[in-house]
Amino acid sequence: MALIVQKYGGTSVGSVERILNVARRVGAMVDAGHSMAIVVSAMGHTTDELVSLAQAVTERPPDREMALLLSTGEQVSGALLAMALVGLGYKAVSFTGPQAGVLTDGVALGGRIVDFKATRVQQSLAEGKVAVVAGFQGRDYDGEINTLGRGGSDTTAVALAAALGADVCEIYTDVDGVFTIDPRLVGEARKLDEITYDEMLELASLGAKVLHPRAVECGREHGVVIHVRSSFHYSPGTLVKEVADMEVGTVVRGIACDTDQAKIALLGVPDRPGVAARIFLAIAGAGVSVDLIVQSIRRNGENDILFTVAGEDLSKTLAVLEPVAREIGARDVFHQCGVAKVSIVGAGMAHHTGVAAAMFEALAAEGINIEIISTSEIRISCLIAADRVEEAALAIHNRFNMGAADRKIATGTSL
Amino acid sequence: MALIVQKYGGTSVGSVERILNVARRVGAMVDAGHSMAIVVSAMGHTTDELVSLAQAVTERPPDREMALLLSTGEQVSGALLAMALVGLGYKAVSFTGPQAGVLTDGVALGGRIVDFKATRVQQSLAEGKVAVVAGFQGRDYDGEINTLGRGGSDTTAVALAAALGADVCEIYTDVDGVFTIDPRLVGEARKLDEITYDEMLELASLGAKVLHPRAVECGREHGVVIHVRSSFHYSPGTLVKEVADMEVGTVVRGIACDTDQAKIALLGVPDRPGVAARIFLAIAGAGVSVDLIVQSIRRNGENDILFTVAGEDLSKTLAVLEPVAREIGARDVFHQCGVAKVSIVGAGMAHHTGVAAAMFEALAAEGINIEIISTSEIRISCLIAADRVEEAALAIHNRFNMGAADRKIATGTSL
Repeated sequence: MALIVQKYGGTSVGSVERILNVARRVGAMVDAGHSMAIVVSAMGHTTDELVSLAQAVTERPPDREMALLLSTGEQVSGALLAMALVGLGYKAVSFTGPQAGVLTDGVALGGRIVDFKATRVQQSLAEGKVAVVAGFQGRDYDGEINTLGRGGSDTTAVALAAALGADVCEIYTDVDGVFTIDPRLVGEARKLDEITYDEMLELASLGAKVLHPRAVECGREHGVVIHVRSSFHYSPGTLVKEVADMEVGTVVRGIACDTDQAKIALLGVPDRPGVAARIFLAIAGAGVSVDLIVQSIRRNGENDILFTVAGEDLSKTLAVLEPVAREIGARDVFHQCGVAKVSIVGAGMAHHTGVAAAMFEALAAEGINIEIISTSEIRISCLIAADRVEEAALAIHNRFNMGAADRKIATGTSL
Repeated sequence: MALIVQKYGGTSVGSVERILNVARRVGAMVDAGHSMAIVVSAMGHTTDELVSLAQAVTERPPDREMALLLSTGEQVSGALLAMALVGLGYKAVSFTGPQAGVLTDGVALGGRIVDFKATRVQQSLAEGKVAVVAGFQGRDYDGEINTLGRGGSDTTAVALAAALGADVCEIYTDVDGVFTIDPRLVGEARKLDEITYDEMLELASLGAKVLHPRAVECGREHGVVIHVRSSFHYSPGTLVKEVADMEVGTVVRGIACDTDQAKIALLGVPDRPGVAARIFLAIAGAGVSVDLIVQSIRRNGENDILFTVAGEDLSKTLAVLEPVAREIGARDVFHQCGVAKVSIVGAGMAHHTGVAAAMFEALAAEGINIEIISTSEIRISCLIAADRVEEAALAIHNRFNMGAADRKIATGTSL
C-alpha cells in the first residue's frame, strides 16, 4: 500500500476514451490498496487551440489574461477524469491548481511554484478519494492565476509528490522512458532502467524532451523518485533518482543531440579584463541564452571568443553584438549556421579516464570534424556539422556499447 | 459620465469577430468617459459542448465536477474579451466569478449568490480599467466553485450592478427588448419602452425568456435599473424598473403564452382539511412544480381539484398522484395534454375594472373555450386548448390595442 502521484500528459487524456483508460488504470491502483493523487495536463491540442483563439483576438495578448485562458484546459481534463472515476464507482474529486494549494511567484506565464499547501489534497486522500489536480497552474499571493510554462504539469506532479511525501511520482508519457539516445535518431537506442537527477538534467537541458528540467530539479531538491513511463502499457519505464545503478560495460548514460545551433566567433578581441562580461551581458540583455563558450588565447594580446546560440536567436544576437564588437575593438565577427551539438552524459564519467578520448576517436573514425569542445563533470559536448549528427550519434552509441544488442556482446566479452 | 454594468450573452460573444464587436462597443463607452464593468456568458455552444463531453465520460457526472467543468466556459470568454480590449488600446482585466468576489450558497449547480464582495472589481475601475467578470459562477465559503444555473449570468450582472451602485445594468441579448408578446407568435408584437419588476417577473416566469426571473428579483431587491437591449444595434431596448410609465390606451403590458401544459383533475375529493396539502406535498416531493390550481366546491361534501403541470412532468406526476388519490378516497383522476396557458400582465390592472371581462370577451369572440381561470394582482391566466393559442394571443393583443399599428389608431381615437 503506497501513496502514489501520477501525472498524465495531454496525449494520455487526449480523448474521452483515453480519459476512461486513465480512470481504469488509476482505479486498478485503488483496488490494489494504493492512495492515488493524479495530475493532468490539458486534453491533446486544447492549449494550442486556446492560444490560437487568443491570437485571433489580438496579436499580443496580455500575459495575465493568457494565463487565465490557458488554465481552463487542465481544469476541464481534471474534472472529466474525476467524473470518469466516479462513473467507474470510485470516490474522486478534482481541484484547480489554486484549489489544490499550488502557490506561485506571480509570473503570469512561466511562473514557478514557491509552495504547495496540499491540505485539501491530503484531506481528500484521507477520505479515501482519488485527488485529481489540474497541472501547469497555481495562484500567487494576490489570488492571480499563474501558469507554469512548458513542462509545468511535470513540475506540479513532482512538487505534489514532495508535499505529500509520496512513495513515487509516476510521469506518464507517450514514450517508454528515457533512452540512451533519441530512438528516432538511432534505431539501437536502449531504454534506461535508472538515471540520476544530474544526468537527467544534462540530458533534459540538451534536448531529451521526456521530462522537464524544472521537474527534475524539484525532484532532486526534495528527493522524489520519478518514474517516467508509458501510458500505453504496463512495463516499467525509467527511474530518475539520486543514485542510479551503473550498468556493466558503460560509463556513458545517454547521448543528446541539438541540431538547431548557430556558432558565432569574435576574432581579435583585445585581452582586457571585463571584455567577456561586456559581450555576454549585452547578449543576455536581449534575452538570448548562450550555450557553449570557448576562449582561445593568442600571443599578441588578442583573444578569439567562440560561442553558440539557438539558431532562432542568431539574428537577435548579431544585432546586439555588432555595436559591442566595434566598441571593444574586436577585429571581426563571424557566424555560421548549420552546426549541431552532440553530448555524452554519465555520472560515472568523473571516475573514468579516456571517456573524452574515446568520443573524439569515434568521431575521428567517421571523419567528423570537431569545432568546439566543452565539458562538465558529467558531460562532454562537441560542436560538429549539423548534417553529420546521425553518423556521429551512431558512432558514439556503438563506441560506448550503449545499444541493447551491443550490450549483450559487451557483457559477454567482459569489456 | 456613468458607472455602467453590461452583460453579453453567449450569442453576443459567440465568435472571435463578435468578441471584437463587443470590445469596440465597450471601448466606445470608455471613450465617452464611462466606467465599465462587463459580465460575459460562455461563447455560443461552449456550455452544451462541455455537457456533452461530461456525458460521454459518464452517464451521471457529479454536480461538483460539472460545476468545475462548466465554469471554464465563461473564464475563456472573459479572458478573450479583456484581451480584445487591450488589443484595441484600452486597459482591461478579467476575473473569474470567485476572483470577482461572487460568493455562493454551496449548491454546485444552480447555486445562488449570497454576497458580492466586488473589491477587486472596484479597484480595477478606480484604476481606469474595464473589469470583465465571468458570469454564471461563484465560490462558496469552502472555496468550491458553484455555477448559478440557467440565466446565471444575468443574475451576476445585476448583482454586480447592485454591489457597485451602478447607474444601470444593461443586459445585451439577440432580441430588441421585451415585447408585448412573443413576436414569433404575433407579428404585431410591440417592443415595450418600460416595464416594472413585478410585471417582468410575471412575464419571465410565464415564458418570456429574455431575462431570468432571479435577475429581475435581484434588481427589484436592490433597485437596479435593468436595460434589456440588442447587441446588434444601438437602439434602446426595454427598461425594467420599479415604476414604469403606462402608455396611453392600455393597462395590459404584455401577454405570455405557455403551450407545454398538462391538466390533471382529481374528481370527487372528500372535503376534509389537509387533503389538498396531502396531494401537493406528494407532487412537490417528486420535484414537480404545479402551476394553476383551482378547487371547485360541490354540494355533497366533495370537491374537484384541477391543476396544471409542465407537459414533461405529467407521467411523473401521475405516478405519485394515483396512490395518494386512492388513499384519500378520490373518485377519479383525469388528465389532459395539449392545453396552453395564456396570461395578460399589467401593473395597472389592479386599478382598472373590466380587464378580465375584456380578456374573456376576446376569447369568446373567437369561440375559444376557457378551462381554468387564475388571477394575481397583476396577472390573469386562462387555460385553453393548445391549438388555439395563436388565435387567442392575437385576439387579446388586438382587444387591448397592444400592437404598434393599433396603438396609433387607439391614441388617435382616444380610446
